[in-house]
Amino acid sequence: MALIVQKYGGTSVGSVERIEHVADKVSAFRAKGHEVVVVVSAMSGETNRLLALAQEIDPQPEGRELDVLLSTGEQVTIALLAMALKKRGVAARSFTGGQVHIRTDNAHNKARIVDIDRQRVSAVLEAGEVVVVAGFQGVDEDGNITTLGRGGSDTTAVALAAALEADECQIYTDVDGVYTTDPRVEPKARRLERITFEEMLEMASLGSKVLQIRAVEFAGKYNVPLRVLSSFDDDMDGQTGTLISYEEEGMEQALISGIAFNKDEAKLTVLGVPDHPGVAHQILGPVGAANIEVDMIIQNVGADGTTDFTFTVHRNDFARAKEVLERVAEELGAREVSADDKIVKISLVGVGMRSHAGIASQMFEILASEGINIRMISTSEIKVSVVVDEKYLELGVRALHSGFGLEQSIELTQ
Amino acid sequence: MALIVQKYGGTSVGSVERIEHVADKVSAFRAKGHEVVVVVSAMSGETNRLLALAQEIDPQPEGRELDVLLSTGEQVTIALLAMALKKRGVAARSFTGGQVHIRTDNAHNKARIVDIDRQRVSAVLEAGEVVVVAGFQGVDEDGNITTLGRGGSDTTAVALAAALEADECQIYTDVDGVYTTDPRVEPKARRLERITFEEMLEMASLGSKVLQIRAVEFAGKYNVPLRVLSSFDDDMDGQTGTLISYEEEGMEQALISGIAFNKDEAKLTVLGVPDHPGVAHQILGPVGAANIEVDMIIQNVGADGTTDFTFTVHRNDFARAKEVLERVAEELGAREVSADDKIVKISLVGVGMRSHAGIASQMFEILASEGINIRMISTSEIKVSVVVDEKYLELGVRALHSGFGLEQSIELTQ
Repeated sequence: MALIVQKYGGTSVGSVERIEHVADKVSAFRAKGHEVVVVVSAMSGETNRLLALAQEIDPQPEGRELDVLLSTGEQVTIALLAMALKKRGVAARSFTGGQVHIRTDNAHNKARIVDIDRQRVSAVLEAGEVVVVAGFQGVDEDGNITTLGRGGSDTTAVALAAALEADECQIYTDVDGVYTTDPRVEPKARRLERITFEEMLEMASLGSKVLQIRAVEFAGKYNVPLRVLSSFDDDMDGQTGTLISYEEEGMEQALISGIAFNKDEAKLTVLGVPDHPGVAHQILGPVGAANIEVDMIIQNVGADGTTDFTFTVHRNDFARAKEVLERVAEELGAREVSADDKIVKISLVGVGMRSHAGIASQMFEILASEGINIRMISTSEIKVSVVVDEKYLELGVRALHSGFGLEQSIELTQ
Repeated sequence: MALIVQKYGGTSVGSVERIEHVADKVSAFRAKGHEVVVVVSAMSGETNRLLALAQEIDPQPEGRELDVLLSTGEQVTIALLAMALKKRGVAARSFTGGQVHIRTDNAHNKARIVDIDRQRVSAVLEAGEVVVVAGFQGVDEDGNITTLGRGGSDTTAVALAAALEADECQIYTDVDGVYTTDPRVEPKARRLERITFEEMLEMASLGSKVLQIRAVEFAGKYNVPLRVLSSFDDDMDGQTGTLISYEEEGMEQALISGIAFNKDEAKLTVLGVPDHPGVAHQILGPVGAANIEVDMIIQNVGADGTTDFTFTVHRNDFARAKEVLERVAEELGAREVSADDKIVKISLVGVGMRSHAGIASQMFEILASEGINIRMISTSEIKVSVVVDEKYLELGVRALHSGFGLEQSIELTQ
């Protein structure tokens, strides 16, 4: 018998029929004797419907009232799911975020959980009932309703699992796990049985949209085993999907877990900047002041006492960043600004590369053999990223996927 | 400067456009320096939409979960109205029933308010903000969400007005006040400027659907002046509509305030029951046990030691009541059961009739002069009711309306 926290997202509860299916899954877990806490999102489309109502009144609705409005979406789902469970003879009770004392700060629309009182939930579990909790919401210390921001239901589930010291937190979604890369780009992509928190963070931040990054961080921090799995299949065991946990000793580790990529980046370079201390700050200061987030940063020193400074930004910020940079370049007496938004970033991720030299050079060799020119390189302990021309995305991902043997169906945990 | 509690029902907040109109009205009150608490219902159609979702899952959804579900309807409205007020520069804050501590018993779907903590609301009013409260809902002592049943928003408004000792509780609706009778039956019906709580109770229970009966009782009990007025006009003064209050000394009182009628009744008679003590209970006991509510009751003693016993029930219960009665009649050795669902009840209501004899006989005379046969009569201190054949409804109401001079536009409060 285990204590499981399950989270079902918007598409998983997108209709009465889907909610009934979720109730079947939860019932199956109860029938095995597990204690179950279920966290649900708003039915898909509902949050957008409410947002549209608000914006009809005020394009920039006030944060506090927007939270009062949006939090009703999850409240509808908890009631319907609890009804569906009771109809199946499964004792269940629904709770809003406030009712189970999910305390947050008061940053409306993007609040952070500061505390969960486990007493209330534990008491209901001990009484043999399934606890159905509204995700995405909480209350601040004055009792105002807050929301955690889009996707915050994952965070609610992980936070509850941490507070209750649950055996596993299962995130049910519309995909059946985490893949070695995006199957739309590489059809040979393979589902991973396991992945570490660190790898998942790198995969998530690089564009795998399976899980909210904050939820993964939270799970890692409190060591909550996290499983991503599909709510659409008929598996009632919860043993499929991908398990995200810490690296276990003695576990044979693959060199590379997966290949992430990001199509939303654009690259900007200031060429021929007179090199002196503080030049990086003089360039990036105005960019940051314009509220533009920078991803990769590279600086090369040239031969003539000047330097070339390159960084990437989100493609949405490209035009603004270019404007800022042209002004800065003139002030600094730089030669010119070059800008390119037809690029992509491809990254190899794997905790295994910590102990294996040569992963980076193997990566460059594979890309070179396909005639793909690398425009930028950046590395971290468990990741190597390259920026290449947009047109090489599919070719590059497939070449690396095959070059590192990711399509093989050898299970990592064997 | 006064403290006003305003309540806007479902059609008054039925669309974003209507909510904007309500915000205009509230703003106008604030601009005059009044303190305002606004109670709102769910947008019209929303409660039915939610109910349909629930019933798709379970035709008899559990009460607790149904309340969690339905209470979201008002929560959406409070957020949207608070946004609309803020857009107009009016400081405002929304609260669910639980957030302003509207404590109820735990009778889900038909809870009764047991206590309201005025501290929270008072503090926000003192800070110069408009308080927007979700009607129809509260929490029980364990923090479970409860609802007061359909129309309960009126009760919320009156209870808040009582707790805050407000100067007036204004119920905005889709009619512009209480009329001497239903204008669809008598186009000459006139809006009353004032009416007493007792008269309003008689009018409401007899079929005028303007106000929830519980709200009127509550207002009477706590002496909260209640005003019914239209949310659809452009009046920004709140001095129109009908004011419901206690009779004031020296106030010239009309004999008759209005004519109510009820088309939903049916009449049942047991003829020739052997008369002995307890016969009324023997007849009505089984009817009550079948959960059938009885309205008027009349018993006449016959010459031959038998009695005729007549009562009315809601037309929906007619068939069941007849079945029960036929069984009872046989047991009691009664001669026969006669039943008629083609009847209506017409009632004269007015506190003035207390001090004036002869109202009843004047009523019977007017009806007789139109050739209308009276089937049953029942009187109370401020009401005379007659049952007549259904086909005489319009004729009877118009004859009485004109016979008692109700169409004259003499204002009662002059």
